[in-house]
Amino acid sequence: MPSHVSPPRGMRDFLPAEKRRRERVLSTIRDVYRSYGFDEIETPVVESTDFLYSGLGGDNEKQVFAVLKRGLDVDDLKSADSALALADLGLRFDLTVPLARFYASHRAELPAVFRSVQVAPVWRAERPQKGRYRQFVQCDIDILGEAGPLAEIELISATTAVLSALGLEGTSIRINDRRVLLGVLSHWGAPAHLTEQALIELDKLDKIGVEGVVARLHEIGVEHGGLEDALRELSTADWSTITGTEPPAWLDVAAAADLVALREALPGARLVFDPTLVRGMGYYTGTIFEVAHPEFGYSLGGGGRYDGMIGRFLGADVPAAGFSLGFERIVDLVDQGDPDHDGLALVHDAGVPAAELTALRAALLERGEARVRLDRRVKNLTRQLDTLAESGYTRFAVVRGGEGVDDLQIKTLG
Amino acid sequence: MPSHVSPPRGMRDFLPAEKRRRERVLSTIRDVYRSYGFDEIETPVVESTDFLYSGLGGDNEKQVFAVLKRGLDVDDLKSADSALALADLGLRFDLTVPLARFYASHRAELPAVFRSVQVAPVWRAERPQKGRYRQFVQCDIDILGEAGPLAEIELISATTAVLSALGLEGTSIRINDRRVLLGVLSHWGAPAHLTEQALIELDKLDKIGVEGVVARLHEIGVEHGGLEDALRELSTADWSTITGTEPPAWLDVAAAADLVALREALPGARLVFDPTLVRGMGYYTGTIFEVAHPEFGYSLGGGGRYDGMIGRFLGADVPAAGFSLGFERIVDLVDQGDPDHDGLALVHDAGVPAAELTALRAALLERGEARVRLDRRVKNLTRQLDTLAESGYTRFAVVRGGEGVDDLQIKTLG
Repeated sequence: MPSHVSPPRGMRDFLPAEKRRRERVLSTIRDVYRSYGFDEIETPVVESTDFLYSGLGGDNEKQVFAVLKRGLDVDDLKSADSALALADLGLRFDLTVPLARFYASHRAELPAVFRSVQVAPVWRAERPQKGRYRQFVQCDIDILGEAGPLAEIELISATTAVLSALGLEGTSIRINDRRVLLGVLSHWGAPAHLTEQALIELDKLDKIGVEGVVARLHEIGVEHGGLEDALRELSTADWSTITGTEPPAWLDVAAAADLVALREALPGARLVFDPTLVRGMGYYTGTIFEVAHPEFGYSLGGGGRYDGMIGRFLGADVPAAGFSLGFERIVDLVDQGDPDHDGLALVHDAGVPAAELTALRAALLERGEARVRLDRRVKNLTRQLDTLAESGYTRFAVVRGGEGVDDLQIKTLG
Repeated sequence: MPSHVSPPRGMRDFLPAEKRRRERVLSTIRDVYRSYGFDEIETPVVESTDFLYSGLGGDNEKQVFAVLKRGLDVDDLKSADSALALADLGLRFDLTVPLARFYASHRAELPAVFRSVQVAPVWRAERPQKGRYRQFVQCDIDILGEAGPLAEIELISATTAVLSALGLEGTSIRINDRRVLLGVLSHWGAPAHLTEQALIELDKLDKIGVEGVVARLHEIGVEHGGLEDALRELSTADWSTITGTEPPAWLDVAAAADLVALREALPGARLVFDPTLVRGMGYYTGTIFEVAHPEFGYSLGGGGRYDGMIGRFLGADVPAAGFSLGFERIVDLVDQGDPDHDGLALVHDAGVPAAELTALRAALLERGEARVRLDRRVKNLTRQLDTLAESGYTRFAVVRGGEGVDDLQIKTLG
């Protein structure tokens, strides 16, 4: 591909076959979520910088593609104290901040418990690398207005059904609860201002092990005599009995009971307690979860409860929980075949009158053909037929002029 | 809607019912174009400013939402000689410039005659007004690599089929040819540098009449003794016989013959010659057309042949013609009803175990229900049922706990 006509850095063009594949997967995801009672909404791709830089996006706020204000003159540039002062809009970096803005704007028009689907692109100016793009699609479902675990249960069962409809068998859902993690930190006497940093360190448990994490925690100032024992106990606990007669002192028993109840309510979903699961975003307040697949070292999606956030722009508390699927990872794994892989090409001589060709096509579509392409015959017929097969056409007929639709000799392609 | 949480100026949020309606109309458009042998592609929403400001976009280039370069410091701002010097990307203002860039990048992977569909949003920083938005969807089909009138015939027949599938009966297609207009101007001795401006004046014929246009042409310097007579002759000519034995001296006979042939090839499409049709974009080189509807004073879409443009970034000539539908206008006119307007709500008491509810739903979906929503019973059941009906649910069952799927008493809503 000539580089001077490439798409912008880290972004992609989609040719017909890939576009079709993506649309099929998106359509499955939409259909299943809809069958579970979720409603799709859409917001503009840009939001005001007031919302994008409100602190809800964590590190993503640094990755915003900012849009220049209109009508700036050179004096405006000279007097600006930063480039961002010249921007009033930006491309959204996730679908959660726009959802919070949308909900604040439209709450009166929505059901008391609102189940939303958003299937849409987001943009982040990350350093491009394999499998990471600057424009990519997210599939988010969120339940707003439901404080109880029924929200998590609906999110997880709908998402499990999506994964199953996509043929991604064998996935499990790792779950944990921020309250459990905060309970451990509080038990260790970790000061509140170190909580966020301590969570980041705990997140490394599966990579650097108990001793590694203890060393990191000491470094940032979380000191506790029994740190190592407690951490070992946390990471090896038997969660099926943990809330029994003698729960460990570091355990938030209510949160642990919720986790147990969640697993009981979702017998088909393969829920696995993972006390080392932290998840990056600061806004989670309760249950957190991630989709794990036995073949892949990365998560296919995740989410959790984030009660403090949706109400932020509304000035009221709104309980909320959400589940986001990483569409770009999923679409690479799924091969559903093409149920619409069918089509008839009319390979016609150059002299056949156009009115005749369009009439033939109209008659064939009327008869139930899914798609009919007119393709003027070129010298290299073999090559031409190969290209048609690659475009998903399964049959062809040569048209020399004067044929009626019943005269066509339809042959199989490829 | 509280204004501080509104979407950005001139842009819109779509609530579930409207989103669903839009997706249904888009789906019909995609399906029909696909059945006519067109293939959908997708490009990123942003393009390099090199392409957006290449002169192909006419006035639209002034409406670009420009995206700030990354990593600019205050010195960069001070030394910039314009705001645009700080931007390297911008939101696309149409789908034609991206198509030209896409084609230059991927021509080797595409069929010799490439029929593309693009159904996607574009952005223009226009002054917002009724029916004009700063983010709006365009539906474009283009045929690249076909120099003959078969391209126009396919574009018009496919688009006529779309309009008919959407139930927009009674539309006609106004057609003209830029070569006819240029022939008239040349016959009048209009200097080449005035051509573009003269076309803009001719475009006003249906608004300000022959005398008005003659006055404007005189003003800009197009002088010709027979101007008024020729203009009157042009606007009242009988196009069905115009290429006969004595064509008028101002007529480009080849172009007129193509127009006649086009109408003969498309007997079902209600093609109407309109010598006053000009169309705004400078890049058209041959046939031009617009969709007219008897009830509306505005066009629902338009297009034409633009042979010089697609090859611009490739450095080679590529014959091309396209047809763009104005989705936002069309979606307001179409009322297809909701074929999927169906759904079953399980209105459950708060105490019913979640596992029981999810099992009921799974069984109902298994039985063929299209969608099942769990809705916790609230005090005001009437209000709750109304909201469900508004969300497109047609039936409900009250769940008190302990029921099997066969025990449910399903009642009609609304």
